[in-house]
Amino acid sequence: MKRLTILGATGSIGLRALELVSTFPDEFTVTGLAARGSNVELIADLCRKYAPEAVALLDPAARDRLARLLPAPAPALLAGPEGLVALARDVEADVVLSALVGGAGLLPTMAAIQAGRTLALANKETLVMAGSVMTAAARARGVALLPVDSEHSAVFQCLVGHNRGDVHRILLTASGGPFREWPREKFSAITLEDALRHPTWKMGAKITIDSATLMNKGLEIIEARWLFDVRPDQVQVIVHPQSIVHSMVEYVDGAVLAQLGVADMGIPILYALTYPERRPTPAARLDLTRVGTLAFFEPDVERFPCLALARAALEQGGTAPVVLNAANEVAVAAFLDRRLRFVQIPDVIARALDAHPARALASIEECVAVDGETRRRAGELVARHAGGALS
Amino acid sequence: MKRLTILGATGSIGLRALELVSTFPDEFTVTGLAARGSNVELIADLCRKYAPEAVALLDPAARDRLARLLPAPAPALLAGPEGLVALARDVEADVVLSALVGGAGLLPTMAAIQAGRTLALANKETLVMAGSVMTAAARARGVALLPVDSEHSAVFQCLVGHNRGDVHRILLTASGGPFREWPREKFSAITLEDALRHPTWKMGAKITIDSATLMNKGLEIIEARWLFDVRPDQVQVIVHPQSIVHSMVEYVDGAVLAQLGVADMGIPILYALTYPERRPTPAARLDLTRVGTLAFFEPDVERFPCLALARAALEQGGTAPVVLNAANEVAVAAFLDRRLRFVQIPDVIARALDAHPARALASIEECVAVDGETRRRAGELVARHAGGALS
Repeated sequence: MKRLTILGATGSIGLRALELVSTFPDEFTVTGLAARGSNVELIADLCRKYAPEAVALLDPAARDRLARLLPAPAPALLAGPEGLVALARDVEADVVLSALVGGAGLLPTMAAIQAGRTLALANKETLVMAGSVMTAAARARGVALLPVDSEHSAVFQCLVGHNRGDVHRILLTASGGPFREWPREKFSAITLEDALRHPTWKMGAKITIDSATLMNKGLEIIEARWLFDVRPDQVQVIVHPQSIVHSMVEYVDGAVLAQLGVADMGIPILYALTYPERRPTPAARLDLTRVGTLAFFEPDVERFPCLALARAALEQGGTAPVVLNAANEVAVAAFLDRRLRFVQIPDVIARALDAHPARALASIEECVAVDGETRRRAGELVARHAGGALS
Repeated sequence: MKRLTILGATGSIGLRALELVSTFPDEFTVTGLAARGSNVELIADLCRKYAPEAVALLDPAARDRLARLLPAPAPALLAGPEGLVALARDVEADVVLSALVGGAGLLPTMAAIQAGRTLALANKETLVMAGSVMTAAARARGVALLPVDSEHSAVFQCLVGHNRGDVHRILLTASGGPFREWPREKFSAITLEDALRHPTWKMGAKITIDSATLMNKGLEIIEARWLFDVRPDQVQVIVHPQSIVHSMVEYVDGAVLAQLGVADMGIPILYALTYPERRPTPAARLDLTRVGTLAFFEPDVERFPCLALARAALEQGGTAPVVLNAANEVAVAAFLDRRLRFVQIPDVIARALDAHPARALASIEECVAVDGETRRRAGELVARHAGGALS
């Protein structure tokens, strides 16, 4: 029995993981569940179904509502950021699935690493913010970081068994999002509804907008740099609208290994949970003769400046990616809230980066400080855009 | 220094391997060269350039001509089938590249295995003929069989580091050859020149014709069954005209690993010679944005009956694949010699298979006997076709 703790249990990755756990009841037991707390009824259902030892909710009021919904013997109930950290650190688990969205996952994910737990990592923002600190901690504790992102799972699968020193470059595929073929002049008219219509993947709102701006791929470049310990220029992006090739690794001899499959997160999630083994997934099978053709294009950084911003932040290094991520989170939240236009998202990020003199990142505490500072600054930028002070 | 012996030094694979050896003079030394002997001047050149300890030629007269061309101290010169066997067995080598064409490679390849030498295998016909015996001998001697065929090298690379028990199926890609889009009614008019015009790979004459009939893919199904120890129904074929995806492995969880690259045999040859390491290959790099699209189709066994004949022979097992291979070699030689029409190739093979009651294959000697017997029978079938007695 593999003991599993899920940080972000009510998000799309967390729920899919729990669905898979139900399919393999003899393989997994759920020991801990953590979530923001925006859907207490759903968490109560999960508690009845999976009987975790402990539950942590970011929102203390949600913890109190949950306590009233659950009959005794209820799981131990924790709350607040320190509750999530305690859950990740103290609840026994063979694997911790880190699937919170955004910077909220940083401290509990670090706590899981410091407790020496194998980490299945879906929360890419944590690596973007604190890649150097997290990977150093993982090395020091001998903790495996298993990617859950479909692209990084693909890269990981293409690296298994091969010499890391023989890697020439990593090619992350990008669907190109809903605006891949939109002309530049139409971008200023993009609505929230347009942006939420992803062509190939069904995902949470934040990552869907990141996919539309291509910031998602930018964050993935940074994630790949840390996960696979390669130089920034060794991570490249190729647009592949069918989302069948999930990513590739080119070796020094010119051989390219690729991982392909249907667009179903069940495959990378289950692989991270069962690695180094595999299990038959209740997912559709890839039939390439039905797919017909796979196409590949260069990404267009003119229409999608977020990709260039992410690369610039990675090359600057230190605290710059923290700023990139925080400003993006604030801008995307404002766009989802209809307080910012689509084309203003990269503008907020660029201004936040310009205003921040990057420095070396020494600790998680510094990471949290820069994150908070940037969120305030980005909030002001959003307000100035909303007030028409910025164009 | 890796000591290398090449069986089939003057064929397209052998010459390419020697070219690669020149690129890495500090890595390889050539200890033995074997060839049929049809181009003595070329062999003399190779001796001057690579200074092997010994050379074996199938044709004894060619050996004598070579002796006159080479000044002392010449390499030891051997001749005849037993000369090739002696070279494979007695000349020290860390890797033997088995790259003779057709059944002529069987005995020297077996001799290399029995001498315990790592085998880089390009001579697929030997595995088709004697897969059970060869793989049993390799297991008994702890000899690694490293595939050189681009498809099998691709599969091998997609298997490295993964659990063999997790393999769902192997997908061999086929370019489809020059007649992929030809309607069935035009097949009777196919000329030798048409058939020699392969769309993506530049190869020797025999394999080029096998690619046009799709028998090459049929032989590769059998080769894969033995190399990777899978059930015949786990090896499937998918037509992919661009020859960029060299083959794929689908795992039980639905994940598919693929190996891609430009159509250059330098990559799989060098990989087999340097495995488990890789070296930068002086080959063009794959740029998928230039390739644009990759297409995939079901193979058409109606127009390409050789594919079905090969699968039937594999399923019959025992001596049936020996008959398949021998009849195909005779029929292809006759077609290259303009004594047989293209559409008559599968007919000769089908009749040879029908006339042979398959039995278990006990030894290499039995393999050689069935091979000889089938060649005589297939020769008669070709003569009857030429005389108009068969339609």
